[in-house]
Parts: sequence; C-alpha cells; structure tokens
Amino acid sequence: MSAHPPTAVGTARVIPLPSPFALEAGGALVGAKVALETYGELDSDRSNAILILTGLSASAHAAAHPGDPSPGWWEAMIGPGRALDTRRFFVICVNSLGSCFGSTGPASTDPATGQPYGTSFPELRIEDIARASQAAVDHLGIGTLAAVIGTSLGGMTSLAHVALFPGRARRLISISGALAATTGAIATRSLQREIVGSALRAGQGSEAVANAMKIARKIGVLSYIGGELLEKKFGRMQSEPFSGSGSGTDFEVEHWLDHLGDKFARSFDPWSYWQLSRAMDLFEFARFGDTLSHAARRVQVESALIIGVTQDLLFPALQQREIAETLAAADVTTQYVELSSPAGHDAFLTESGLFTPVMRHFLEGLDTPRPPRGHTDPLRPQA
Amino acid sequence: MSAHPPTAVGTARVIPLPSPFALEAGGALVGAKVALETYGELDSDRSNAILILTGLSASAHAAAHPGDPSPGWWEAMIGPGRALDTRRFFVICVNSLGSCFGSTGPASTDPATGQPYGTSFPELRIEDIARASQAAVDHLGIGTLAAVIGTSLGGMTSLAHVALFPGRARRLISISGALAATTGAIATRSLQREIVGSALRAGQGSEAVANAMKIARKIGVLSYIGGELLEKKFGRMQSEPFSGSGSGTDFEVEHWLDHLGDKFARSFDPWSYWQLSRAMDLFEFARFGDTLSHAARRVQVESALIIGVTQDLLFPALQQREIAETLAAADVTTQYVELSSPAGHDAFLTESGLFTPVMRHFLEGLDTPRPPRGHTDPLRPQA
Repeated sequence: MSAHPPTAVGTARVIPLPSPFALEAGGALVGAKVALETYGELDSDRSNAILILTGLSASAHAAAHPGDPSPGWWEAMIGPGRALDTRRFFVICVNSLGSCFGSTGPASTDPATGQPYGTSFPELRIEDIARASQAAVDHLGIGTLAAVIGTSLGGMTSLAHVALFPGRARRLISISGALAATTGAIATRSLQREIVGSALRAGQGSEAVANAMKIARKIGVLSYIGGELLEKKFGRMQSEPFSGSGSGTDFEVEHWLDHLGDKFARSFDPWSYWQLSRAMDLFEFARFGDTLSHAARRVQVESALIIGVTQDLLFPALQQREIAETLAAADVTTQYVELSSPAGHDAFLTESGLFTPVMRHFLEGLDTPRPPRGHTDPLRPQA
Repeated sequence: MSAHPPTAVGTARVIPLPSPFALEAGGALVGAKVALETYGELDSDRSNAILILTGLSASAHAAAHPGDPSPGWWEAMIGPGRALDTRRFFVICVNSLGSCFGSTGPASTDPATGQPYGTSFPELRIEDIARASQAAVDHLGIGTLAAVIGTSLGGMTSLAHVALFPGRARRLISISGALAATTGAIATRSLQREIVGSALRAGQGSEAVANAMKIARKIGVLSYIGGELLEKKFGRMQSEPFSGSGSGTDFEVEHWLDHLGDKFARSFDPWSYWQLSRAMDLFEFARFGDTLSHAARRVQVESALIIGVTQDLLFPALQQREIAETLAAADVTTQYVELSSPAGHDAFLTESGLFTPVMRHFLEGLDTPRPPRGHTDPLRPQA
C-alpha cells in the first residue's frame, strides 16, 4: 500500500457536550466540549460513519486532511483504499474527554474559577469518554454507527460504548483493549502516576514536572514495546557520550527512549495523563451488569472483531481472547484474531500491513444483511 | 523439605583484597575487602568448596548460622540435606565488590580522602566482582572450587569467573544470567540509574534520594516478577485508601510494591546500586576472547549446568539457551534446564522445590571421575 494516497476529504471540529455533562464517578462538567476530526463524507442516510476511540496519548488527528496535511497517528489505516476506506466510510476520530488536544480536560479552564482545572478536575472514567464521544456522534445527527473501533485505552472505551449504547453501533472492533487491566498493567501505570502525581502535588517547578513526565513516559514506552523489537532496532549499539541522563552508559536505546520521553513531556498535559491512566486501571466491563455475562448481554452489535497481539505484555493476547469469549458466550457474533508482531502493544500503530486485511475483511461484511443474532464464528487465532 | 533444618556450621568473615586491587576499567582500590559467609566445613584436602556469586541486591548472608540465625536469602537451598548440602560441601557466599554489605563499595571510606567514595568510586565491572571473589577463595587457601554458582548478576559473574580463572572451578551453575544484557534489560536498568543518578547528582536531600531509590526499585521489581504471579497474588484487590503514593488508586499490588521499594531504599546504598546496575549492562562475555567462541574456549570446567526460567523477561530463557549452546560448542559438557515458574526472574529465590532436584542431581556427579573433555550432554529443556 502506498504511504501517501490522495488525502481524504476531512475536517477538524469542536463539538459542545450537553451541559452540565454528568460524570460516572459523580460531579459534572459545565460547558465541556470534545475535539474531533472526520475523513470521507457522510452518506445521505447517515449510515456509513465509523467512530474511532483512541489510546491514551493520541489526538483526534488520525489522518491528514486539507486543513491539516501532517500525517495522523493512524495515517496508514485511513484514506482512499485503506483499511478504513474513506471512499466508503465517514470516519470520525474523537480526542478523549480528559485529554489535552482540544477536548475538555484538566488543562482546560474551569468556568467556575476562570483557572485551569488541574488537580480539581473531577474523577474521569472510561464511561465518560465513551459518553462524550457518543454525544459528539449524536451532535452530528448520526443514528447508528457502521462501526465503533478502539485501540488500547480506546479498546476499553469501545467496550464501554457498546455496553452503554446498545444498538448504536452495527459492529465493534476492539484492538489490544481489555475487560479490566491486568495486575501488572495496574502496577506499571500506578508507578507512572505516582511519579507524575508526586511532582505535581509537591508543586515542583515545571522542569521537575517535565522530568517526571519524561520518566513516566519511558516506563510507559517500555511496557508498550516488545523486547524483540528493541533488540532488533538497537541491540548493544552505543553512541556519543550521553551526558544528560545520569545512567552512566551511552546505549542507543537510551537516546531513543530519552527522545520519546522528551517529546511526550513537551506535548502532553501531566494531569490529563494522570487522569486517563487512572481511568484505565479503574475500568471494569463487568460493572455494566450484575455479572460479566449480564454485562456482555447488553451488547447488541451485529458482529465483533477482537484483535490481540501475541507479544503484547500490557494488554496480553489472553485478555483479548477473554473479550472474544465473553462476547461469544453472550451470543454476539465474534471473531478473534491474534497477530504476531515484535512491536507488542504498539503493533496497531506500526503494523498496518498486518491489521489492514483483517479489518478490511471484517468491514466488508457490513453491506450484507444483518445475520440472525446468536450466530457465532469460531474463535480462532490467525496469522 | 523442612523449612528449618538444623542450622549449618557457619561464619561471617571479612577478607582483605590484595592492595592495590587493580580494576578492569582502570584505577585501583587501596585497602579493599570483601565480606563473606561460609556454611559447612572445609574438608582436609580443601576440595569441597562451592562459591556462590549473588544477584544485585543480596548480601553474603545466604543462610542462617550460629553467628546470625536470621534466614538468609537462599535459606531453602543451603543446609544439611538441602541442594547445597552442608554435610558435604563448604559453601562460600561473597558480597559483591561494590555492594554495601561489608564489601568495599561507594559507601566505604576512601582512604585517600577519609570520606565515603560516593560518586568518586572507580568504574566497577563484573570482572572486578569475579576477581575479588576469587581473591577471597585464594585467601581461604582453596586451590580448586568444587563448583561456582551464580544467580542473575551473579550468573554473569560466574561466567566471568570461569573465563578469568580456567581450572579453578570443577563445575559451573549459572542461573538466569547472560552472556550480555538484552536491549530491554539495558533500557529498564538505565532508567533506574537515571532516576537514582539524577537525584544523587543534583545533591538532593536524603528524602529525595530515598524516593528515587524507591521508584527505581519498583521498576526493578516489575522487571523481575512475572505478571502471572502478580495476577494470582493480588488481582484487582483494593485496600485502605493509600494516601502516600499519588497514584490515585488503592490496589493491593501498589501497597506491596511500595513496601518493597521502601525496604530497599532504607537498606541499599544508592551509588552501590547504580554501579552494580551499570556493571551488568556493560558486561560482555565475548570480550574474554577475540570472538564469543574464543571466549568460551577459555572455560575449563568439567561440566556446566545452565538454568533458565520460561517466564523470565529480564534474563529470558532464550539467553540461557545461548549460554548453554556457546559452552557446548566450545566442548564444555553442558546441561541446559528450563524451568517454568510464574515468579519469572525471581524464581531462584522462591522456587526451591524446582531448583533443588536439578542442582542436587548435577552436583552428585562431582564424586565421579572427571569425564574426558569434549563430552557434551544434549541440550534439552526439562520440567
């Protein structure tokens, strides 16, 4: 697939949320909004919309469009002829509520005080991100989504979406998400929040907070990326003495991590990061019902595609299989695909060659008549 | 096996090193020493000594003895009837040079200044730890060790030992060590050093340094322990609100990690930690020769046992197999055993039931005549 197809028709918009916007854990936001981008054109019966729910650090800029020709975070997947084919679909990518790229979050001004929310931003949950995203879909006058797609944190949000809004999406694609975080994922994210939260609460200067964000991001990156890929990319390569880090060594992998940490610290709001990270750890799909199977019974999509990556340690393939089995047991037509990539949790960002055929094949079925509820594809690993 | 067998005869000693003691990367230590403990009795021909080389954080107190009846870090493996049977062997455990439990390290007084070395401690390498340990063995008048055994960092040190001192040990047991660290292990340890090193270099107060050590240790623990074990031990259990951490959540796993981090920060010298961590990342067995296979040709043990753990992410089983294959290719009689334990890298500390039969079986062969060099056991995973 060409790296630079014709850029899709697209726009960037900011959508006001109903005000006050009540939150799952209590409290409400007044005058809140979400930023989104769209690619392709909404058809006359408003039936071709796909909603993308993002990972923790992504903005709504998933693909280039005339108003912003810079490559988006899922550029290789969105556009004419791509997995999310903009000749056919109207693709909507929403910046999560609580994030810092145009949607209301801790860095936004609290209308009650005229100051940024910061630590006073109310407790955010995955459910709030799902509800805000659906409110944007409502605002666009779209009754039923052709599909809802989520990756990582967005995989959780997509599961919340189909449980909270039964019948509002025809299909679900959940990529490297979870019904609930593993203990190990909680431990590693908690540590990141501790580092950032402590620096912020101590009222440390912006340099100390930026350094905390940098360290936290490095821990995060090491939990996303597969060891196999690090080995292949960097091995034991060494480079120019690296005075900044204090590690006492000069391995290339350290430079690379430092660059990623720096970039993140300069672009992401620390409290947004903290809130979104905590929301992931507190998410439990089973809470949508009295039991996990009751919760799954709320889901009314025509079919679901669950994609996991064998080398993902943060959202292990075992968890993806659990999502698929839970949905299938609730009579949702479910397909489970396990991909192998040394990129680990980050595979969905970099392995478009693996994800494209799987997602395209799944979405092709959208034109066929709705199958009777209760038909279940076998759960089988692929590729 | 009983948890409290009769305590072995044992002693704690401090051995002076030859002075000056030249270091691998340049420089020398004057008046340096290493702390060690011994268990069991040296036989009349001094042929039954086993040298244990430890992981990063361990002291020489591997087992209880009359002078210190508190349980040692390898208590379940050392004593009458245990894997390292003190009715038969004279077991020596050395605190690594550069550590802080009686051996000379950054927290020791520099005789040139009368002040602690701190940041001025010369660059430490794994080779130095091996040489200092062998100097202690020399001091005890032991010509040939019955075996040298190393775990984790000590696994690296044991490989350095058999390359530096050919013929001074009859057998080698390397557990979860490496010929050289993986890129991922370097990245995670570099990050720990950056956190500790930055706090120390900034001359931050002892509370800030203790906090840095705590964070670094938590990152370390998460790299040692298997996710499967965390899941089983803690799941999503929550506990009393946990005001200290700043993570915004109260999961049991966070309390547990915090306790471990605290304990380590209170007991381990920060510069010792930093130096030992860097030494691991800089170790390369291949440097003992022009090539890896030349280096392996230096090894003259009668036989080697290499043990790996399938769930170890920090020193993956793949690396253990590499050690075994490298030695076998150099005509060292080598056995490779891969154990499965959810404890991951920490398995050697907690899974005595798995390690005991494997090590006992291997050491039983010590009474048999030396087999001709060149005989190679098949490399096969076990258990």
